[in-house]
Amino acid sequence: MSWIDDPEFATGKPFGPQTLPYGVLGTSSGPAVAVRVGRHALPLRGIAEALGPRLASLVDGTCLDPLLAAGSRAWRELRERLIDIVTADRAPAGAELLRADWHTLMLPFTVADYVDFYSSRHHAENVGSILRGGSASLPPNWTHLPIGYHGRSGTVVVSGTDIERPCGQRKVSGDSRPVFGPTRRLDFEAEVGFVCGGEQASAVPTAEIGEHVFGVALVNDWSARDVQAWESQPLGPFLAKSFATSVAGWITPLEALDSARVSVPEPEQALQDYLVESEPWGLDLRLEVQCNDTVVSRPPFAEMAWSPAQQLAHMTVNGSTVRPGDLFASGTVSGPEPGQRGCLLELTWGGTEPLTLDDGEQRTFLQDGDRVTLAGSAPGPEGTVIGLGEVTGTILPAARR
Amino acid sequence: MSWIDDPEFATGKPFGPQTLPYGVLGTSSGPAVAVRVGRHALPLRGIAEALGPRLASLVDGTCLDPLLAAGSRAWRELRERLIDIVTADRAPAGAELLRADWHTLMLPFTVADYVDFYSSRHHAENVGSILRGGSASLPPNWTHLPIGYHGRSGTVVVSGTDIERPCGQRKVSGDSRPVFGPTRRLDFEAEVGFVCGGEQASAVPTAEIGEHVFGVALVNDWSARDVQAWESQPLGPFLAKSFATSVAGWITPLEALDSARVSVPEPEQALQDYLVESEPWGLDLRLEVQCNDTVVSRPPFAEMAWSPAQQLAHMTVNGSTVRPGDLFASGTVSGPEPGQRGCLLELTWGGTEPLTLDDGEQRTFLQDGDRVTLAGSAPGPEGTVIGLGEVTGTILPAARR
Repeated sequence: MSWIDDPEFATGKPFGPQTLPYGVLGTSSGPAVAVRVGRHALPLRGIAEALGPRLASLVDGTCLDPLLAAGSRAWRELRERLIDIVTADRAPAGAELLRADWHTLMLPFTVADYVDFYSSRHHAENVGSILRGGSASLPPNWTHLPIGYHGRSGTVVVSGTDIERPCGQRKVSGDSRPVFGPTRRLDFEAEVGFVCGGEQASAVPTAEIGEHVFGVALVNDWSARDVQAWESQPLGPFLAKSFATSVAGWITPLEALDSARVSVPEPEQALQDYLVESEPWGLDLRLEVQCNDTVVSRPPFAEMAWSPAQQLAHMTVNGSTVRPGDLFASGTVSGPEPGQRGCLLELTWGGTEPLTLDDGEQRTFLQDGDRVTLAGSAPGPEGTVIGLGEVTGTILPAARR
Repeated sequence: MSWIDDPEFATGKPFGPQTLPYGVLGTSSGPAVAVRVGRHALPLRGIAEALGPRLASLVDGTCLDPLLAAGSRAWRELRERLIDIVTADRAPAGAELLRADWHTLMLPFTVADYVDFYSSRHHAENVGSILRGGSASLPPNWTHLPIGYHGRSGTVVVSGTDIERPCGQRKVSGDSRPVFGPTRRLDFEAEVGFVCGGEQASAVPTAEIGEHVFGVALVNDWSARDVQAWESQPLGPFLAKSFATSVAGWITPLEALDSARVSVPEPEQALQDYLVESEPWGLDLRLEVQCNDTVVSRPPFAEMAWSPAQQLAHMTVNGSTVRPGDLFASGTVSGPEPGQRGCLLELTWGGTEPLTLDDGEQRTFLQDGDRVTLAGSAPGPEGTVIGLGEVTGTILPAARR
C-alpha cells in the first residue's frame, strides 16, 4: 500500500498511479515542478535524492522546459522512477504532499510555436454547412491532408486564467461598413493539445511521434466568431483567435495513454505515404464541456479523422522543424451527434438554436461571467481510467480603453 | 575625424554614423553583439568601460534579447552613447574592429511570435488578378484592416542560411489527386520586418510604436506557390511558408529612420479610430531584389497602404499582447510598376512571363542554386542615406528522405 494517503490516489481513480501528469505549482517557495497524485501534488525538487542527480536536474527548476528538451528516454526513465516512488510503502526523503486545489497552477512550459489543426470531420462539415448553408461539405483538400495554421504562442495561458472579452471589427451582413467593439459571438473550442520535446527534427515519420511528443493537454481555443467571419479571408483567422488560448496545467505523458490508442476512421482514399500510419495513433479520449456547471457536450476524440502522429508528420514534411515547447492542437473535437459538438457555433447552429443551461438561462454565445471547463478521460491499462487535467476559464467584460 | 579608419564609415555612406545597425557576429571568442560601422563591426562587450555598466550589461551577451527587453529609453541612450563613441577622434579602451564580411552573422534575437501582413495594395491586387483572373480586385475587408496571419517563428533564419527546397502536396488542375514532392514554384517575397521590444503591452496606439518597435530588418518570406494554392483554403498558408523565413542579420534602429517617415497613401474611406495615425509612420524605404546578381525588382515601401504603426495597433487591439522578440513583417512589397513587384509570382505573372537574367538564363520560379538577395536604403538626416542590412539565401535541392 502506497505511503500516499489519498483515496483519490488509487488505481481505480482517474489520477491514480497509472496517470501521473506533470505540472508546475505555485508554492510558498516559488514555482515547482510536480506530479499529480490523486488530490495532491508531489513537488519533485523535494525528492531529488530518490530521483537521483540526473533525473532530479531535469525537474528542479520552475518549469518543464529542461524535461521537454531531455527527450523520450529521460521521459520514460523519470516516469518509471516516479511510479516506483509513489507506489512504495514508505515516503522518500523530502517528500511533501500539497493539496493540488489549494495551489495555483502555472503555465508549465515555454510555448515555442503554436499550431492549430482542423481535424474533426464533423466539425468541418458542420462549420461549412452553418457558414455557407446547404448540405455538409468539406474543402477539397480536407481529406488529403490535415489542414492547420499557426496561432499566437504569446497568448497561450494556463487553465484558470480569466479571459477578457476581445474587441475587434465585425460586419453585420447588410451594413455597408464594419463596426468596432467587443465581440458579440464569443465561443469556446474543445481541443486536445500535444506538447513537443526531444531533439529538433524535421520530416518526422508517424511512427516516431513518441520521440517528439511529451504529453497531452486539453486546450480551449477561444474564438470571436464575428471577428473571424470578417477578417479570415483570404489568409485565415488572426485576431479572432489570438487574444487567448487556454491550456491545461496538468500534462499527461503520452506514454500514459498507450491503452487509449485506436485507429483513426478509415480514410476515403489512399493517403500520401508520409501520412500512412504503421501503427494506430488515434486516441480514445472522452471529453466533456461544462458551461456554468451544465454539461453541454461530450466530444469523442476517437472520431478525429487525423491523428496527432499524422499532424506532426504533415507539419514537418516540408522540412520545417519541431522543437521543444512547440504545441499543436487538434482543432475542435466534434462527434456525429448533436450532443458531441465541440463549440457553441455548432451547438447552437450559428446562434439560431439557443442552449438551455441547468439554471434555466439560455445561451447562443458566451456572456460575461460565464465559466467554461473542459475535462476528459481515457481508458488506462487493465480497466483503469486515465484522467486528463481540466482547462477552465471565466469570461471578463471587455476592457475599457 | 573619427578613429574608425574606414572609407565606408562616412556620413555620405549607407553605413556611416547616422545608421549604426545592431547585429550578432560569430567571433573567435563566441557570438558578440556588435554595431556596424562601414565595412566593419564593433563588438560592444569590448567597450564596456566607455558604455558604462548599465548599458554594457544590455549588450555583453550573445544576442540582442536583453537590449530588446530594456525598452525605448535604453535604446535611445545606447544609440546616443554609440554615436559619441564612433565619432570621437580617439578609440575607446578595448575597441576592436572586425571586418563585417569576414565574420558570420547569427540570428540576432530569439524570435517570439512571427506575424506576416499583406499590406501592399499592388501586391494584393496582382495576386487576386493572377489567381482568380479578371481585373484587379481586393478582398472586401482589405481596405478596412491590415490583413495578417501568424507564421512559424522556429524556422526564422538569419541572412546567409541556405534554403532547402521544401516538399509538399500540390495539385495540378485537371488531376484528380494531389501529388507529393519538391515544390516546383519556389518564390521569394521581399518584405520589411519590425523587431519588437519593451514592456509587454496590448492595444498599442499608433503613436506608441516607438515604445514597442526596436528596429527594422529586411525579410524574405520564401513561399512554395503550388503548395500554397492547394493547402490555403480555408485557414490560410501553412507549409507553403513555414519551411523558412530569412531575416537580415543587421537590425536598423527605428530611430535611425526618422527622416524616412512619410504618410501612407490616403485611405479610400474613414478608418476605425484605432487605425488613424496622428503622425505619419509610413517609411520611404527603397528595396532592391537581386536574383543571381541581376536586379529583378525595386519595390518602394512608401507605397504600402498600411504602416507598421497601424499593423501593430491592429495586432494588439483585441487584447493580444506584444512582447520582446515578436517580429512582424509587412507582406510582400510591390509598387505600381512591373519592375517594382516583390515576388516572382507577380514578376512572371503566375509563371506565364519568364524573366531573363543578365546571364541570359530565364526564370519563372526559383531553381536549385539560385541566390536571392534583398537590400535597401532610406533617406537619412541632412541628405544622408541609411543603409539597410541585406538578407540573402541560396536554394539547395530538396532533401532525399
